[in-house]
Amino acid sequence: MTRQPVHYAPPPMADLGFWRLAGQDPDRLAVVDPEGGEISAGELLAASNRLVHGLRALGLQKGDVLATVLPNGAPMLELFLAATQAGWYITPINHHLAGPEIAYIVDDCEAKALIGHERFAGELSRAAKEIRLGPEGRFSIGEVDGFRPYAELSNGQPDTTPSDRTVGAPMQYTSGTTGRPKGVMYHHRGAYPQARAVVGHTGLSPSAVHLWTLPMFHCNGWCFPWAVTAAGATHVCLPKVDPTEVWRLIRAEGVTHLEGAPTVLSMIGYATEAAPVETPVRLATGGAPPSPAILRRMAELGFEVTHLYGLTETFGPVMICDWRPEWNDLGEEEQARLRARQGVGNMISCTARVVDGAGQDVPADGVAVGEIALRGNNVMLGYFKDEAATRQAAPDGWFRTGDLGVVHPDGYVELRDRSKDVIISGGENIASVEVEQAIADHAAVLEVAVVAAPSERWGEVPIAYVTLHEGAQATEEEIIEHVRTRLARFKAPKSVVFGALPKTSTGKIQKFRLRERTEDGEA
Amino acid sequence: MTRQPVHYAPPPMADLGFWRLAGQDPDRLAVVDPEGGEISAGELLAASNRLVHGLRALGLQKGDVLATVLPNGAPMLELFLAATQAGWYITPINHHLAGPEIAYIVDDCEAKALIGHERFAGELSRAAKEIRLGPEGRFSIGEVDGFRPYAELSNGQPDTTPSDRTVGAPMQYTSGTTGRPKGVMYHHRGAYPQARAVVGHTGLSPSAVHLWTLPMFHCNGWCFPWAVTAAGATHVCLPKVDPTEVWRLIRAEGVTHLEGAPTVLSMIGYATEAAPVETPVRLATGGAPPSPAILRRMAELGFEVTHLYGLTETFGPVMICDWRPEWNDLGEEEQARLRARQGVGNMISCTARVVDGAGQDVPADGVAVGEIALRGNNVMLGYFKDEAATRQAAPDGWFRTGDLGVVHPDGYVELRDRSKDVIISGGENIASVEVEQAIADHAAVLEVAVVAAPSERWGEVPIAYVTLHEGAQATEEEIIEHVRTRLARFKAPKSVVFGALPKTSTGKIQKFRLRERTEDGEA
Repeated sequence: MTRQPVHYAPPPMADLGFWRLAGQDPDRLAVVDPEGGEISAGELLAASNRLVHGLRALGLQKGDVLATVLPNGAPMLELFLAATQAGWYITPINHHLAGPEIAYIVDDCEAKALIGHERFAGELSRAAKEIRLGPEGRFSIGEVDGFRPYAELSNGQPDTTPSDRTVGAPMQYTSGTTGRPKGVMYHHRGAYPQARAVVGHTGLSPSAVHLWTLPMFHCNGWCFPWAVTAAGATHVCLPKVDPTEVWRLIRAEGVTHLEGAPTVLSMIGYATEAAPVETPVRLATGGAPPSPAILRRMAELGFEVTHLYGLTETFGPVMICDWRPEWNDLGEEEQARLRARQGVGNMISCTARVVDGAGQDVPADGVAVGEIALRGNNVMLGYFKDEAATRQAAPDGWFRTGDLGVVHPDGYVELRDRSKDVIISGGENIASVEVEQAIADHAAVLEVAVVAAPSERWGEVPIAYVTLHEGAQATEEEIIEHVRTRLARFKAPKSVVFGALPKTSTGKIQKFRLRERTEDGEA
Repeated sequence: MTRQPVHYAPPPMADLGFWRLAGQDPDRLAVVDPEGGEISAGELLAASNRLVHGLRALGLQKGDVLATVLPNGAPMLELFLAATQAGWYITPINHHLAGPEIAYIVDDCEAKALIGHERFAGELSRAAKEIRLGPEGRFSIGEVDGFRPYAELSNGQPDTTPSDRTVGAPMQYTSGTTGRPKGVMYHHRGAYPQARAVVGHTGLSPSAVHLWTLPMFHCNGWCFPWAVTAAGATHVCLPKVDPTEVWRLIRAEGVTHLEGAPTVLSMIGYATEAAPVETPVRLATGGAPPSPAILRRMAELGFEVTHLYGLTETFGPVMICDWRPEWNDLGEEEQARLRARQGVGNMISCTARVVDGAGQDVPADGVAVGEIALRGNNVMLGYFKDEAATRQAAPDGWFRTGDLGVVHPDGYVELRDRSKDVIISGGENIASVEVEQAIADHAAVLEVAVVAAPSERWGEVPIAYVTLHEGAQATEEEIIEHVRTRLARFKAPKSVVFGALPKTSTGKIQKFRLRERTEDGEA
């Protein structure tokens, strides 16, 4: 190096997008919340500043963790904001999880505060009985047994003391495809440009109205909490995806943008209220490839669908099926085929690769299958307290997704197979190994394998193949109920098939044979 | 801090957007260059890799500087690319400058290579006679006396060795409002998100076709070289803004995006070829507020105009007049008034401020005037080799723009007065002090002041007020010719008025009085 930069106090890594709206025009509408009404940008900022005060008073320091079990709504946005400002990690927990699952994450991330909502009071109370965090750190919106009123946190003085934001970012837990969920450590250098990439790819602007069909707890809402705010658009919150409410809000609020898994598209597209929209709505979908039928239906209704792909470890949508103008003249079927591909790295990703076992690129011939490998600022910092898993996930700096795919000659990647253990049901990931462990815990069970069965409604559902101990007895209903006491209801198998399991000569269960049997309609 | 992140090899700061296009689809059209034909993404990358090889062979190392005097075209893009990959600073020099001005910048930035084009052969040869850089480091596209053939750099083997890109970024020279131009040191942490902000605010996408009406040497083309590539759009190069050629390319190439100063808008809007476009063209304008008349004209032709504001020190467009949907129902005159405001910080800027002499915000009442102050990743690292100026420019971390403005109650900033010394002529900044020094160098001149006069064609033109030494003689033509031998032609005064200069009691020239006289039609 021949020279040193002569830099003065360098500008801070600018905030993730919250201040922009509030600083410019405090009176502008920022959030529409069915529970909290209309909230201006200035009010959103003030509410966040009050939370900073309340949580600092509780003892939270830079780098500490804040966990939430909240529906989509203004409080969740305000907590994202407060954590970003104060330099805390925030762990938004899936509110479909059962008490013990919530407790595991709260303890594992070493949360100094847990903020819940009375809608999930039952599981929150169960969780509270197990966690190390005492009642002084638990707060609830509405009444939850063993939790303090949220107002104690949110009704104080605003604290506007800035933080340098060099630490503190979301810490999102995976669905635990290889057992227990892992804490995925995010970082500002990922979230900040990723939020801008989301704006760039979706066309958010101050004229945009964004409907929160996507859960905010899902990979931090794919970074849309920051993207919508950075663009100066309006958040419309939806605590629960209900097609009637979605259609009411699309019309009443003039919604221009929303996201969801293909199952959410089906719910919207085939709702009784469905009718063509007046101005086009931009819809991003991910979690599974959209089918030609649903793409056709959404196009008829005036929705412009973009297919995205991502993982918890990649701040959500790390790849995009970027539409190319030369495809406009193709037939509908061909267009649907192209649109269902996972595509290419987004504008802040390195080129997405598909690699063989030795880490070499497979040929871009649309045939050779390899593992999708990703790199860029939008890859996590690592797994929390698990350096071994962190290193294993990226042996050469390229993060291995566990998903198998091909590269087409035009450079677009298409998934051929999800990593075998994952079942994607209603957009939620279910780790088959986790369900297997719950079933194996039943006294009558000798061995078990759980695989995905296709479902019109949910995309996939888990099906259990079970061998009982000799002379032992258990019914299908007993097994399912057994799982429900341990895991979220959606993870319980939809049916249970009893009998011997197919195995390799070395004794490994041949899941692919079970999948074949499932597809043949056995379950 | 309660925890340390358990990070493995962190992902590198991803490239500024060049690799994405090439990595995905090497056959895709990336550049249309009237001189070089159609260039695919793969060819663009390969050409850049050959330049990396050629320049490394010349001895350029990480952190070294590369200067260019080039028209808009593929070679300029390829050099941006090569410098980004190899970690060199690149100093694109305004090709309207005169030989001695070019020489000053080449020497000041300590360039290890200078790459020019035969179109500017005269001034390049003059510069070559003065600079320290020997003939071994000078290359030209076409023939320039004292320069080696560009092919020696560009026809070798490709070098694909990656660089970590922790150093190396453009170094852009200001137009020198307070005397000599200063080297503005850019950094990747600014250019990288700024390019994404440009995508987000302009709606660039793989379907976009971007026409290069803006010079690439101007603040690195406002970061559009990276933004267009990151979005996967196509560059259409225009070596010289000619309205006939602009209209031909808009139609032949299906242009969707372009930029330019309001004078460029007038040139396009009032060209004989002007006629409504079939699909809307998104046009970003800056350098001066667009007039209601030109906004009306461009709207008639199907151009959607967005007003941006920025400086060399801010990677170009740091503020944007973000259009608000509630303004759609206002009358045309009111809309034009709103659109001519400089607006708000872009999506990676901190909230733009207007401050008084003590650094306090002026009231947002649309009346109180202060200096525009900016902060964010898109503010320079500092002035090259000038720590004093660097510190002075941002006494409290907020960069003082030298431009005076007001904040309206809706948070939008509007310029009231350019910093008094700058004359903006055809989108080019002219420092009055620089012209004054050139005139003062004439033997007959006692004292001089240069101010802006309004010009229908150029926006502003420089007018000189000159007092001659007692008994000395000089004509208007002589003074103008004298300046032309020292500075670029566009900087020479359009007229010269002889006489005594108005002064304060302390002897400072009262330029505002000269401006009044100019506006009254004296010159």
